[in-house]
Amino acid sequence: MAKRLIPSLNRVLIEKIVPPSKTNAGILLPEKSSKLNSGKVVAVGAGTRGKDGKLIPVAVKEGDTVLLPEYGGTEVKLGDKEYHLYRDDDILGTLHD
Amino acid sequence: MAKRLIPSLNRVLIEKIVPPSKTNAGILLPEKSSKLNSGKVVAVGAGTRGKDGKLIPVAVKEGDTVLLPEYGGTEVKLGDKEYHLYRDDDILGTLHD
Amino acid sequence: MAKRLIPSLNRVLIEKIVPPSKTNAGILLPEKSSKLNSGKVVAVGAGTRGKDGKLIPVAVKEGDTVLLPEYGGTEVKLGDKEYHLYRDDDILGTLHD
Amino acid sequence: MAKRLIPSLNRVLIEKIVPPSKTNAGILLPEKSSKLNSGKVVAVGAGTRGKDGKLIPVAVKEGDTVLLPEYGGTEVKLGDKEYHLYRDDDILGTLHD
Amino acid sequence: MAKRLIPSLNRVLIEKIVPPSKTNAGILLPEKSSKLNSGKVVAVGAGTRGKDGKLIPVAVKEGDTVLLPEYGGTEVKLGDKEYHLYRDDDILGTLHD
Amino acid sequence: MAKRLIPSLNRVLIEKIVPPSKTNAGILLPEKSSKLNSGKVVAVGAGTRGKDGKLIPVAVKEGDTVLLPEYGGTEVKLGDKEYHLYRDDDILGTLHD
Amino acid sequence: MAKRLIPSLNRVLIEKIVPPSKTNAGILLPEKSSKLNSGKVVAVGAGTRGKDGKLIPVAVKEGDTVLLPEYGGTEVKLGDKEYHLYRDDDILGTLHD
Repeated sequence: MAKRLIPSLNRVLIEKIVPPSKTNAGILLPEKSSKLNSGKVVAVGAGTRGKDGKLIPVAVKEGDTVLLPEYGGTEVKLGDKEYHLYRDDDILGTLHD
Repeated sequence: MAKRLIPSLNRVLIEKIVPPSKTNAGILLPEKSSKLNSGKVVAVGAGTRGKDGKLIPVAVKEGDTVLLPEYGGTEVKLGDKEYHLYRDDDILGTLHD
Repeated sequence: MAKRLIPSLNRVLIEKIVPPSKTNAGILLPEKSSKLNSGKVVAVGAGTRGKDGKLIPVAVKEGDTVLLPEYGGTEVKLGDKEYHLYRDDDILGTLHD
Repeated sequence: MAKRLIPSLNRVLIEKIVPPSKTNAGILLPEKSSKLNSGKVVAVGAGTRGKDGKLIPVAVKEGDTVLLPEYGGTEVKLGDKEYHLYRDDDILGTLHD
Repeated sequence: MAKRLIPSLNRVLIEKIVPPSKTNAGILLPEKSSKLNSGKVVAVGAGTRGKDGKLIPVAVKEGDTVLLPEYGGTEVKLGDKEYHLYRDDDILGTLHD
Repeated sequence: MAKRLIPSLNRVLIEKIVPPSKTNAGILLPEKSSKLNSGKVVAVGAGTRGKDGKLIPVAVKEGDTVLLPEYGGTEVKLGDKEYHLYRDDDILGTLHD
Repeated sequence: MAKRLIPSLNRVLIEKIVPPSKTNAGILLPEKSSKLNSGKVVAVGAGTRGKDGKLIPVAVKEGDTVLLPEYGGTEVKLGDKEYHLYRDDDILGTLHD
């Protein structure tokens, strides 16, 4: 019954990646390794309209893994899951393996 | 005798969706399930004029279900019903089943 | 002997609509029904000039009934009557029966 | 020996209209009738240059009677007379009989 | 040995006109007559570049007598003489006999 | 297992150059010689989109040695290494031998 | 071993001119004569990109003697020498003999 959200304008819907605090074998990981604040792009808005009315598309796309700023973003709950909305300009970059 | 309001410029008239706090059978729902601040778009303005005088249309349309920010919006009472006015840029996204 | 005012640029001259606090039969109306802050557009400016020098006309026109924000506007007294000046962007919308 | 001032850019030189506080017959007028803060346009600037370098002319012209905001404006003394300089955007409107 | 200053961008070099506090015959003038804060334009910058890279020339020219705002301006000493630098937008107007 | 970060828009990923506080021979260097706050450009964003939607490329490129402002920048940890993100406008210049 | 700095965007690298506090013959000069805050332009950035992506060149050039504002500028040490970085808009003007 969870609703699907299409972000407006240049907003980006993010599902944060929570780093495991234990390994599979149950060993507690040191806090430092969980510092990277990253997320998965779930949905992006259509972009903002420039001064001349043309759409400026959002700089990230669905499926991207992104680096997020420490502060900011709006918490959104859809069904049981927690998401965050960010303006695309607030996203620090995309992460690649 | 209620008046009809056509929002000006990029304003959007919203009727907030109040989630039922009880089920039809009278069972109280836990508070958490009512967290989503959403509304129905009742009317939209004609848009703002860009620097070159052309209209930039509003990003949502009548009938859309939208996700609203926690704060902001102007309360408006038309007849017996309570509405809220938002700038289209303040609307976080549209909700779809 | 009252002077006529033509608002400058994107300003709009408004005569506020004071809702009757009693019915014709003298019955006091509850306070809540008088909450709508509306007015009649008496005169509008020629509009502001955009970056390219072209006039961007005011979004409302003489005779419109408009919804006004709770705060703002400049009180102007012309002859015995009290008016208010608003920037057209501050007007929330137009009211229709 | 008074100098003549040509305001720069979008500035407007105003001679304030001081309403008589007595009638010709010497009767003191009630304070309320003197509330309108108006003035005569004595000189206007050539206008400001827009982003594309073209002049955007001042919205009022010499000889106009204008409604002034309660605050703002720069006092200027030329010879024995006191004037005020306003940006044309600060002028609320023009007054007509 | 005094250096010559060419102001940058839209800056204007002004030599302030100090009104005589005594007449030639040695009579002290009342303070009020010295209120006008004016100066002579000694040099002007080439202007600022607009968004499209074109120069927007300075609104006053060498030799103009200008009215200055009460505050602002940067004091500059060249040789023995004291000058002031103003942005051309801060100059209130030009004075003419 | 360290991830690679592609900065968004006009952001620049920097690896700071930590000046040696001792010489190879183990002699402590005076503090003054370590004042220059510089770094190596590891990755740059695609640039920001101008008002007309066109990309404005980042002013520095991968491999550049840059001079950094004393304050600002966002710390990012990728694998074991510490990096900093800066907006390209905050970078003071490029350093060359 | 000193590095060469190419300022970014519209930044200008300045070597301040320190006025002699004694004459060659060893006579102390009065403090007033050292008031002029000037410098030599050592290097300039490529300019900033305007809204349309075109470079707006820096208003001063290498070798110019410039008048600097009393405050502002970022101290940079290259080798043994101390320099200052200014935005070209902060430079008050160029000095000529």
